[in-house]
Amino acid sequence: MKKYNFNAGPSILPQVVIEKTAEAVKDFNGSGLSIMEISHRSKDFQAVMDEAVALFKELLQIPDGYSVLFLGGGASLQFCMVPYNLLEKKAAYLNTGTWANKALKEAKFFGEVVEVASSKDALYSYIPKDYTIPADADYFHITTNNTIYGTEIRKDIDSPIPLVADMSSDIFSRPLDVSKYAVIYGGAQKNVGPAGVAFVIVKEDVLGKVSRPIPTMLNYRTHVENGSMFNTPPVLPIYACLETLRWLKALGGVEVMEKINIEKATMLYEEIDRNPLFKGTAVPEDRSIMNVCFVMSDEYKDLEQEFLKFATERGMVGIKGHRSIGGFRASIYNAMPKEGVQALIDCMREFERINLR
Amino acid sequence: MKKYNFNAGPSILPQVVIEKTAEAVKDFNGSGLSIMEISHRSKDFQAVMDEAVALFKELLQIPDGYSVLFLGGGASLQFCMVPYNLLEKKAAYLNTGTWANKALKEAKFFGEVVEVASSKDALYSYIPKDYTIPADADYFHITTNNTIYGTEIRKDIDSPIPLVADMSSDIFSRPLDVSKYAVIYGGAQKNVGPAGVAFVIVKEDVLGKVSRPIPTMLNYRTHVENGSMFNTPPVLPIYACLETLRWLKALGGVEVMEKINIEKATMLYEEIDRNPLFKGTAVPEDRSIMNVCFVMSDEYKDLEQEFLKFATERGMVGIKGHRSIGGFRASIYNAMPKEGVQALIDCMREFERINLR
Repeated sequence: MKKYNFNAGPSILPQVVIEKTAEAVKDFNGSGLSIMEISHRSKDFQAVMDEAVALFKELLQIPDGYSVLFLGGGASLQFCMVPYNLLEKKAAYLNTGTWANKALKEAKFFGEVVEVASSKDALYSYIPKDYTIPADADYFHITTNNTIYGTEIRKDIDSPIPLVADMSSDIFSRPLDVSKYAVIYGGAQKNVGPAGVAFVIVKEDVLGKVSRPIPTMLNYRTHVENGSMFNTPPVLPIYACLETLRWLKALGGVEVMEKINIEKATMLYEEIDRNPLFKGTAVPEDRSIMNVCFVMSDEYKDLEQEFLKFATERGMVGIKGHRSIGGFRASIYNAMPKEGVQALIDCMREFERINLR
Repeated sequence: MKKYNFNAGPSILPQVVIEKTAEAVKDFNGSGLSIMEISHRSKDFQAVMDEAVALFKELLQIPDGYSVLFLGGGASLQFCMVPYNLLEKKAAYLNTGTWANKALKEAKFFGEVVEVASSKDALYSYIPKDYTIPADADYFHITTNNTIYGTEIRKDIDSPIPLVADMSSDIFSRPLDVSKYAVIYGGAQKNVGPAGVAFVIVKEDVLGKVSRPIPTMLNYRTHVENGSMFNTPPVLPIYACLETLRWLKALGGVEVMEKINIEKATMLYEEIDRNPLFKGTAVPEDRSIMNVCFVMSDEYKDLEQEFLKFATERGMVGIKGHRSIGGFRASIYNAMPKEGVQALIDCMREFERINLR
């Protein structure tokens, strides 16, 4: 039985990335050595790093003056690295869910934090829109895609102060105007590659403005100046990222990807809205094209476990919703093919036929 | 031609680890999914993490009261995490080389640092022995193996204050008395696995004693309490670590490993001492059994490039010495088979015959 991986992250990767990575684990570039045992200072790995950075810049049309970093520690480490490097007195955060909250909490170690708006009142089912970004804060932090709640900020917003975005789960899902951001960061394990590496796109001139001393490894400048090679980087995960970026480029880049993503998300949301058994949890205008969250309709709540079993038996993997919201979550990242979404829709229709005949 | 990988790190891994990891990249545990796309919260990955921790504890006979962590960011991040968590007022460091220096430098961000002794006067060719550990410091930090200079502290020293050791390049090379240490940490990419994950063995009761607030990801307690799963860990590198630990256990554990390591190192040092073309750089009593550093004898200095070429053409990979010391470095970590060391010795003898006939 074909399986479709709807895991929220680590999540589905393109088949070619899996195959190329397995090959490189056995023999990298015909060197007779595994990618796991080569020096990160070797010419061959430097080429991997250079191409990964170049593809980031090309695919996202990153303007001059920005560096692309690949760092260990995950996006969670970035929650403290951002304020360590940028927060002198005050930072502003938009609270759109669990991960936004975690980021906000870390900033409090470094200074005053203003929560400019929150959708906590409605279990984060929408993106707050009526808020004022304080002009005297050092930066404004947003979480563009909220994996747990299935909401997404799909426009590059205007901010009077440096804009920092956690794009862990929607980077490369659409074209971006990077010039509107000071920092964009995220864990790789959704649209970029496997777990074990975080990416940071940082505008160089926002650095060096805080007065606190910054430990070397937590200082973005260290990594900018050393091309992410100050210390041994996560070699194998970065290689898998490179293969993912190559795949994305071959497919046509983020413009093509966005069309496919919208198509996939539309198919699934239409089924959720049509099928009387199900209902979406996010307000329609803020629905994520990456994580589609839905529950059983009120009158069919008792069928939840049954549908989970039904879908799992038909090859759907990882569709159980996060415990804080329940129901179901279909993570349909870049690598999820349309046929996977169709297979899930077929399950929902079949389940409807069985239960509502 | 068979290649022998003498890289200093990332470095040689057992062939079985390479094969098993390549398999898991293609299909993990027959799940139909790659190890790169499974959830770190899945039962199957929890089993990987649990077994890796259990093998660490078993192989090193770690007493109760210690936690074993697998973290992103590398040993370099530990250089600041150690003082973040342990340095209240003053820390003591033994300066045995470049990496010890880097660790020491980071501690200065957090308090007073005493360099108790240094072998810098002799290009770190020995381990200082006559020193007094200040009883009023919060901890004493050592770097047990100095990859660049080929020196090693191969005994578990007694310290009147908590002992912290960077064992990046000699963990699992010999049995340890873990009870003598408060913290043992290191990057995996020598004896434990590929780059992208660091291990930390931490005595739980040394934590929680500093007054500074510690950002969540930098706080050892976070990772102790969450079993290294507070955030998404480096899944694939950890899997490769598990396979390396399984290999080590199957081989007979650290006692057997130490015998083999001593045998390999002795073979190579004997050749260096016998062969008139070469000489060792570290003083004999402090020679590392992991990194064997040597140069051409004074009268044959002009043959350096030639020997490098000669050995490389015969399959020796990564034997060029670090730029700060020059000459050659043969890293003969756990995974280097005796035949690899013999092949290098054969090169040295052959080169002697050609040049001194």
